[in-house]
Amino acid sequence: MTDQPDLFRFELLATEGEARAGTFSTAHGLLHTPVYAPVGTQASVKAVTPRQLKEVGATLVLANTYHLYLRPGDELVACLGGVHTFMDWHGPMLTDSGGFQVFSLAGARGQKGLRTLDDDGVTFRSHIDGSTHRFTPERVMEIEQNLGADIAMVLDECAAPDNYDYSVQAMRRTHAWAERCKAAHSRPNQALFGIVQGGIFPDLREQSVRYLTDLDFPGYAIGGLSVGETKAQMLETLTVTAPLLPAHKPRYLMGVGTPEDLVEGVARGVDIFDCVLPTRVARNGQALLRTGKANLRNARFTEDPASLDPTCACYACQHFSRAYLRHLIIAGEILGATLLTIHNLHTMLTIMREIREAILAGGFADYRAAFWEARR
Amino acid sequence: MTDQPDLFRFELLATEGEARAGTFSTAHGLLHTPVYAPVGTQASVKAVTPRQLKEVGATLVLANTYHLYLRPGDELVACLGGVHTFMDWHGPMLTDSGGFQVFSLAGARGQKGLRTLDDDGVTFRSHIDGSTHRFTPERVMEIEQNLGADIAMVLDECAAPDNYDYSVQAMRRTHAWAERCKAAHSRPNQALFGIVQGGIFPDLREQSVRYLTDLDFPGYAIGGLSVGETKAQMLETLTVTAPLLPAHKPRYLMGVGTPEDLVEGVARGVDIFDCVLPTRVARNGQALLRTGKANLRNARFTEDPASLDPTCACYACQHFSRAYLRHLIIAGEILGATLLTIHNLHTMLTIMREIREAILAGGFADYRAAFWEARR
Repeated sequence: MTDQPDLFRFELLATEGEARAGTFSTAHGLLHTPVYAPVGTQASVKAVTPRQLKEVGATLVLANTYHLYLRPGDELVACLGGVHTFMDWHGPMLTDSGGFQVFSLAGARGQKGLRTLDDDGVTFRSHIDGSTHRFTPERVMEIEQNLGADIAMVLDECAAPDNYDYSVQAMRRTHAWAERCKAAHSRPNQALFGIVQGGIFPDLREQSVRYLTDLDFPGYAIGGLSVGETKAQMLETLTVTAPLLPAHKPRYLMGVGTPEDLVEGVARGVDIFDCVLPTRVARNGQALLRTGKANLRNARFTEDPASLDPTCACYACQHFSRAYLRHLIIAGEILGATLLTIHNLHTMLTIMREIREAILAGGFADYRAAFWEARR
Repeated sequence: MTDQPDLFRFELLATEGEARAGTFSTAHGLLHTPVYAPVGTQASVKAVTPRQLKEVGATLVLANTYHLYLRPGDELVACLGGVHTFMDWHGPMLTDSGGFQVFSLAGARGQKGLRTLDDDGVTFRSHIDGSTHRFTPERVMEIEQNLGADIAMVLDECAAPDNYDYSVQAMRRTHAWAERCKAAHSRPNQALFGIVQGGIFPDLREQSVRYLTDLDFPGYAIGGLSVGETKAQMLETLTVTAPLLPAHKPRYLMGVGTPEDLVEGVARGVDIFDCVLPTRVARNGQALLRTGKANLRNARFTEDPASLDPTCACYACQHFSRAYLRHLIIAGEILGATLLTIHNLHTMLTIMREIREAILAGGFADYRAAFWEARR
C-alpha cells in the first residue's frame, strides 16, 4: 500500500490518568498529540497566511469537505496537486466528511425540506447558489480522496444529542455508512477515521464503539458532541466513551473547543481537537487570554499601552498595544482580524503544547489545576 | 534643534534628464529616492502586517491625518508614543494635512453645505458620526506634530484643476496657510513640506513655486493633481512645474499613482509618490503585472496553476497559484486581499527600486522604453 511502513501508527509515549501524549504518523509528517487543529474551511485559515500559521505553532490543519466540494470543487483541487499544495500547507491535514455542514448549513436557511436524508445518503442544496447536490458514503470518499488530506472522516449522521430514538437511528445509519466508506476508500496515504455516535446515552456510545472498532479504523472520532447538549453532558459522554476506544488508536473530538475544552478533553482521553472558535471570535475582536477572554471593543482598552497578554510570545503581543488592536477592530481594519487570529491560535497551540509537555513530565494534574486557578 | 546635523538633507546622487536618484535624511533613517509610499490610512496598510510591509520592500509609509484625528485621535496616538510606535512602523513616515480628505470625504456625501471653507480654515463633519470639526493651519500643525511622522504636509486648498479663477483663489489661500503652518510648526525631528498649487495653469504653478520656495521648506509637494484632470494634463503640469522647484529639495507627487505614473513622474523630476491604488485594487481581486493588470475574478484563471507573475519574488507568487488566489477572492477570504496586497506592493516597490538603480547606472531611458514595451 505504501513505502512508509509506520504510516498511521499511533505511538503512546506517556499517559497520566486518561490523558495521553503520543505521536501519529502521517504522509506529511509525525503529528505530536494531543493536538489542536486550526480550521481552514475554504482552504484558508481565515485572516492568516500559511507562514503565519506555522509561526504560531500549528501542525495539523482542517479543511471542510462540504465547502471545497462546492467551491472550487474537489476535482479542481486534485488537478492542482491536492489540498496541501493548493493552500501551501505541507504539514498534516484533515478533512471532515461534509455531513455536519450538510445537516447544519445546507437547506437549513428556512428551507429544511430541501435537505432529504435517506439510508443511501443525503440530498441538499448549496448555501452558495441553491443548486442541488447529493452526498453518499461513496461520493464523500471520492471527494475526500480528491482533496487528499492525511486524515479523512467517514460520512456520519449527527442526531439531536438528547433524543434516544433518533440517536439509535442515526447511530445505525452511521454504522452502515462507515462500512460503505471503508469499502469505498482506497487512497493509501490517507487514514480514514470512524465516527462514534450515540448522543448522550452511554449504552449507545458503547454499542457504537464496539461496532466501529470491529471495522478497525486507524483512528476514531467521538461525534455528535458540541451540537446542543450541555457542557456537563459533553464531558460526561467523553468520560464514558473515550476509555472504551482502543488505546493504540488516536481519538478525535470534532468541532471542540475552547481552551477549557482542550484541558478537560485531554483529561478524558482525547488526542485531537479542531474548532473555529479561536479564529471566529478573533474577527469579532475577542482575545483568548490565560485568565479568560477579553473583548477589545470594550472602552477600557482605549488608552491601554500594554500588550494583549504580557506573557505571550506571539507577533501581536510582541509588537502592538491593546489600544492599537482596539483601534484596528473599531476601525474595521483587516489587520485587527489578522493580529487577533495570530494571538488566539498561538494561545490555543501553546496551551496544547504545554499540556503535552505536562503529560510527558507526569505533571498534567498540576497543570490542569493551575489552568483553572488562573481563570478563577 | 536636533543632534542629527544632516536631518532633512536631500542629497542628489545621480540625474538622467529630469529623473533624479537621491537620499533624504529623516529621524527614522535615510530615505532612498525615488520612493513609493504605501498608504496606511488608519495607521494600518490595509490587509498586511508591518512585517509583511517590510518584506515587500516598503521604506516610507503614509498615514492620513484626517482619519487618525477622528479615530483614535492624535492626542491618544501621541500618548502611545507617536504613529511609528502605535503602528509598529519604525522607518520613515509621512502624514498628509487632512485637507484633501476634508474636501473630498467629509461633508461630501450629498451634504456639501456641511463643509464650510473660509480664509481662516475649514469646518466639516466627520464621515464616521457626523460630528462637527474645524481644521485651521495651526490646528493641523498641532495634529500632525502629535502624530509625529517624519514628514508633515501644510494645509492646502485643492481647487478644481481646470477652473482658472478658483485656482487663483485656492492658490492664494494655500500660500497664506503655508506661511501660517510654517509659523506654527515647531517639531524639530519633523520636516514640513510646502504644497504647490495652481491647477493646470503654468503661470499659476510658476507663481506658486516662487512663493513657496521663498518660504524655504525642506521639501515640496506638487498638489492638486490626480483630482479630475486628464492624464495628459497631469503629466504636462508636472513637466512645467517640477523643474522650477529647487534641485536640492525632494519633490512629492501626492496621491499618484499607477506603475505607469511612477515611471512618467520620475521622468519629469518627481522623487516621492504615494497611492492607495495598489492596496485598494488588491482587495477587489486585481493584480498589477509587468504587462498590465489582471482581474482574478476572471474565469480564465479558474484552473490556472501558474503563479501570478512567474518573474516575481513576492510571497504570493512564490507559494500560490492563480487558481488558488482566484478561489480566495471569489470565496471572499481575507487571505486573498492579503496575498494580492503583498504582490501589488511588491510590484510597485520593485519597479521603483529598478527605476532608482537605472538612474544611478545611467540607464533610465532604456528602462522607461522597456517598461512601456512590456505593456504594449
